[in-house]
Amino acid sequence: MEFASDNTSGAAPEVMAALTAANDGYAPSYGTDPIMDRVRALIRDTFEAPEAAVYLVPTGTAANSLALSLACPVWGTVYAHEEAHIVVDECGAPEFYIGGGRITGIAGAHGKITPGALSARLAQTPQGGVHHHQHGALSLTNLTEAGTYYRPAEVAALTALARAEGMASHMDGARFANALVASGASPADMTWRAGVDLLSFGATKNGCLGVEALVVFDPAKAWELELRRKRGGHLFSKHRYLSAQMEAYLTDGLWLHLARQSNRMAARLSEGLAALPGGSLVHPTEGNIVFASLPRWLHRKAMAAGGHYYLWPFDQSLDGLDDTPLSARFVCSWSTTEAEVEAFLDLLRAD
Amino acid sequence: MEFASDNTSGAAPEVMAALTAANDGYAPSYGTDPIMDRVRALIRDTFEAPEAAVYLVPTGTAANSLALSLACPVWGTVYAHEEAHIVVDECGAPEFYIGGGRITGIAGAHGKITPGALSARLAQTPQGGVHHHQHGALSLTNLTEAGTYYRPAEVAALTALARAEGMASHMDGARFANALVASGASPADMTWRAGVDLLSFGATKNGCLGVEALVVFDPAKAWELELRRKRGGHLFSKHRYLSAQMEAYLTDGLWLHLARQSNRMAARLSEGLAALPGGSLVHPTEGNIVFASLPRWLHRKAMAAGGHYYLWPFDQSLDGLDDTPLSARFVCSWSTTEAEVEAFLDLLRAD
Amino acid sequence: MEFASDNTSGAAPEVMAALTAANDGYAPSYGTDPIMDRVRALIRDTFEAPEAAVYLVPTGTAANSLALSLACPVWGTVYAHEEAHIVVDECGAPEFYIGGGRITGIAGAHGKITPGALSARLAQTPQGGVHHHQHGALSLTNLTEAGTYYRPAEVAALTALARAEGMASHMDGARFANALVASGASPADMTWRAGVDLLSFGATKNGCLGVEALVVFDPAKAWELELRRKRGGHLFSKHRYLSAQMEAYLTDGLWLHLARQSNRMAARLSEGLAALPGGSLVHPTEGNIVFASLPRWLHRKAMAAGGHYYLWPFDQSLDGLDDTPLSARFVCSWSTTEAEVEAFLDLLRAD
Amino acid sequence: MEFASDNTSGAAPEVMAALTAANDGYAPSYGTDPIMDRVRALIRDTFEAPEAAVYLVPTGTAANSLALSLACPVWGTVYAHEEAHIVVDECGAPEFYIGGGRITGIAGAHGKITPGALSARLAQTPQGGVHHHQHGALSLTNLTEAGTYYRPAEVAALTALARAEGMASHMDGARFANALVASGASPADMTWRAGVDLLSFGATKNGCLGVEALVVFDPAKAWELELRRKRGGHLFSKHRYLSAQMEAYLTDGLWLHLARQSNRMAARLSEGLAALPGGSLVHPTEGNIVFASLPRWLHRKAMAAGGHYYLWPFDQSLDGLDDTPLSARFVCSWSTTEAEVEAFLDLLRAD
Repeated sequence: MEFASDNTSGAAPEVMAALTAANDGYAPSYGTDPIMDRVRALIRDTFEAPEAAVYLVPTGTAANSLALSLACPVWGTVYAHEEAHIVVDECGAPEFYIGGGRITGIAGAHGKITPGALSARLAQTPQGGVHHHQHGALSLTNLTEAGTYYRPAEVAALTALARAEGMASHMDGARFANALVASGASPADMTWRAGVDLLSFGATKNGCLGVEALVVFDPAKAWELELRRKRGGHLFSKHRYLSAQMEAYLTDGLWLHLARQSNRMAARLSEGLAALPGGSLVHPTEGNIVFASLPRWLHRKAMAAGGHYYLWPFDQSLDGLDDTPLSARFVCSWSTTEAEVEAFLDLLRAD
Repeated sequence: MEFASDNTSGAAPEVMAALTAANDGYAPSYGTDPIMDRVRALIRDTFEAPEAAVYLVPTGTAANSLALSLACPVWGTVYAHEEAHIVVDECGAPEFYIGGGRITGIAGAHGKITPGALSARLAQTPQGGVHHHQHGALSLTNLTEAGTYYRPAEVAALTALARAEGMASHMDGARFANALVASGASPADMTWRAGVDLLSFGATKNGCLGVEALVVFDPAKAWELELRRKRGGHLFSKHRYLSAQMEAYLTDGLWLHLARQSNRMAARLSEGLAALPGGSLVHPTEGNIVFASLPRWLHRKAMAAGGHYYLWPFDQSLDGLDDTPLSARFVCSWSTTEAEVEAFLDLLRAD
Repeated sequence: MEFASDNTSGAAPEVMAALTAANDGYAPSYGTDPIMDRVRALIRDTFEAPEAAVYLVPTGTAANSLALSLACPVWGTVYAHEEAHIVVDECGAPEFYIGGGRITGIAGAHGKITPGALSARLAQTPQGGVHHHQHGALSLTNLTEAGTYYRPAEVAALTALARAEGMASHMDGARFANALVASGASPADMTWRAGVDLLSFGATKNGCLGVEALVVFDPAKAWELELRRKRGGHLFSKHRYLSAQMEAYLTDGLWLHLARQSNRMAARLSEGLAALPGGSLVHPTEGNIVFASLPRWLHRKAMAAGGHYYLWPFDQSLDGLDDTPLSARFVCSWSTTEAEVEAFLDLLRAD
Repeated sequence: MEFASDNTSGAAPEVMAALTAANDGYAPSYGTDPIMDRVRALIRDTFEAPEAAVYLVPTGTAANSLALSLACPVWGTVYAHEEAHIVVDECGAPEFYIGGGRITGIAGAHGKITPGALSARLAQTPQGGVHHHQHGALSLTNLTEAGTYYRPAEVAALTALARAEGMASHMDGARFANALVASGASPADMTWRAGVDLLSFGATKNGCLGVEALVVFDPAKAWELELRRKRGGHLFSKHRYLSAQMEAYLTDGLWLHLARQSNRMAARLSEGLAALPGGSLVHPTEGNIVFASLPRWLHRKAMAAGGHYYLWPFDQSLDGLDDTPLSARFVCSWSTTEAEVEAFLDLLRAD
């Protein structure tokens, strides 16, 4: 009954098999391995972006921070949802990689920024004043931290506002596959056709050990990105082990298959939680994360029985009146099974 | 006939097996996995340092840069051999992590700094002048880039000079195992007993996929290091895959066993190359790297037959008079076999 | 009728005279001039802080940024009012000097943070989580950007919260003299006795050409500050010209005398504006800045006649219905005269 | 008998008079003062560069560091003479402003880099390798730290090499006026016509209180420079006091007149020192700095009588054998008089 995060899951068997296969013999180092050539082609193909620069890094924080260091000048601010990973969960890595800079959080229901909110915030610091931070970049998280997703048209509306202010747009796709299969959109429609300039294309949470692709749709940035990756200590000498994970992930639609599984499990869990006495959803369940509110006594029961998930926000207490509703986050991964979900729901449903 | 680098080799079977085993089921993330508890104990035990802070990162550049960011203030300079990896091969990563800072290269035969050279350089910028960079840290590479190693007494003499100037001492041990088995010293004697404060304890080159331990002998630095690692994007969510590599590496002396193999192969290769007509050694062969000079015609022959290694320095040319001696670097790894070495030497010996 | 800012005023005659006097002959450079010895003694005396480190810099942004670089680690966030100069008017200088870091703005009426608001914000990112920015420093602006001032007891309550979280407290005193004479407190009561660790002690706006003292009450930080000042390019070679301004400023209570004048003029202006038809105060007038609301037609009239001040916020328009109230900021300086204030009020009062 | 540095001298009477005049009444702040409009025009005129971006900062370190932050990427290295101010006298300010980066010192006689030495150093780290620092920028000091100057043709030869490697060229002209009057070249010939992209145009040492112009010949960099200056804390609110100094400096050829005086005094001093028993020149005296070697007993005598100058390098001792030659640096300023020089020489000549 593990719903704490999708990062507590392991790697998919296909990925482990590829890793083992890649271990055979000698291979060129630092990204010149032949597997990487295939990965590059696969990603360009997947995104219908034959010129895109494609680089692998081991963590999502590295991908986001490197992307933002390309997009945002040292005197700029990155606009993002106030609950975005880059705002609350990266200990200043984006500011470190940018070399100063700032991140400006914007409020918005269900983890999403609206064009109105973005416009209003941009208007507070108009271009051309030397005293304040300059407009730097836009960063959208898809799947959002609230488990919802931006539709391509929503992405396009926001990136258009960014572009009008001279800003590049980044997408934090730590759970990109979950957003994509939920939307039914093509990778290209969800990204560059909707105005996204740089994508953190996550794979770790969705069945890999530790690899993310940084996809930069403007190939003119390729060399700068190579240098920044090296300078961040993220260029692997035995790079084939990153390449192999990503190749397996993209082969035969494994990545989409795994994301569909986690989304399906979340949908089932969501339905079950909402149907419990006193149960309700905090955000719409659109991907692999469920935010639901349950009476305190149900949380006590679930946790006592070994259910693993987080109250969200974290500063709620299990101590107190039984019927008080407490909100919580439940995450399904590629390895979550129907049996796990049902066992958890049965536990909660039991008298 | 692969002697280009020890990073073109794969991972040892024991390491791959541990990785596969670690993939079973769910595991806590971000370094709280139980394997990491065992790794921490293993390293503390290995180094007879029960309080040491131990953290894993994926690359040697990350380990070095994080270590130096702990050791050197933003206004300091790191003293290192002028051919050290941090000087010539990290694209400014140490300066980036330090947050400015500088690295001052010091010349020295066979990749080693002498106490005299260090003292002379330190005297050029005495403490207390606000105009120049301050004494920041000392960084020693062991095994050195020239394939030699510092004896514990040599390390102690240099770190004593550093300490007298208020500087911490770092050891870049990307090939620590090779230096250690060559010296016969204990890990503790080679490091903290010789005045080393921070160690980049390499494993990638010597049989892992991508993992290095950062060992900080002053436990008071632990929390700062955790924060800096996260901020650099080097905290793995699925951390068990770093832990598992390192556990296997340290179990049953695998790391020493692998290093002995590469050192032995280098010794054999070294002897063979020096005995060739026109052959001579550029540096003493003390670890797993051979620097030898051969007549140009021999290099041509070797490379034409598929021998893979680098002329060193790189700006020598294969074109020109046949008998001109050209120096080159040959690296053996844990996976180099006697058969490979002999085949290569036979090729060179053949008429 | 100049009320745009106190930085459009000149330097007081006593300051110019001191500058001219200091120009005589040779003088030691880089802060070793004898005038600086006297300045150091004067400031230590003024603040009853015989050990304080005292350094001069040319701008308020330099003073704030250097102070925060001493107080806040690279992975920390500085808590400040959301309208503080360091948040909205320094183009990222604090983040630059800190070396990353972040500034977290906190809302609060009349430019002031309340202990409740600070506590609530601190509770969102509890100590010990490696994923988020750490508690870095507290920065209070006194006189605030809203023209109000913190009482010593209010300062003490906020710095106590900071200290409990391990944070140092900084005071941006660009208009420190104005806050001080308004409060009637002693310099020591307003700063270190109330828990302030570092003070940007402004002089530029209040009658100098360009000089601010950075006063660090913990003398152990002195050398670090010297190095950071040099590294920021703020160490003057012909330092006597900074020293001379500050000496004159502190001699015979000139600084207090000048601040009383600007505060008095603001009080008079404030009273006059509030008494106008449709006039009202936006914030209490406690120092040398008046925030008042007037009908649009009055603003049109004032500006047409050469009144110089800013609508605040800036994105209000003079075009539109006549009676709409628009808020504005009016700043008095040491050189503002009763005649100027009266002329301006007469203009507004006239039919 | 003050020859310690040109920064121990005061400001020229014309400059002080301009400062006093500028103090009259209110003036727009932050560089929008009308004096700055005139300064901009004067500098553009002086350099025959009608489009150049011109900004004022208070110190030479600020000018150099800001210039290099425009010229050199964060992953680049700046090539400079190993004794350049940015290498040995700025406590890491250039690296701080660049945001990492490195400075690579190159040896060369009499403070000057030769094209051969620059080429050789560039060849060590060819373009395109991701592992090492990239070619960042060239920085030439004119007048050099050795008191010599680069001829326009020498500057052109070096900047051509830089340009061929994609690097911009900076000139540290802390003593630009001294180099210029020595060479007889025009400001344009010495700078942009010889391939210089950014100039630190010093005024402080040559008769001002504290002001340097940063002249950027590519106007496309203007806005970036404005932002970087603000972010460094170097944008003066009461900017008129920087403008006024610079206007006076450039009016009626004052800057050239003052430099001619210091150069003339140095020539006279140089001749006198070389003619002393045991006296000789260490570097040719081409500007306002004399490097001469004298027997130890003469130094003892000079210093005992109040002669103020530095042994150079500083680690020579006055204690020891009388006849040992010790080298020293003597600097003349705009305010050095013939009487001072003669008095000093007479002292040394006396039995």
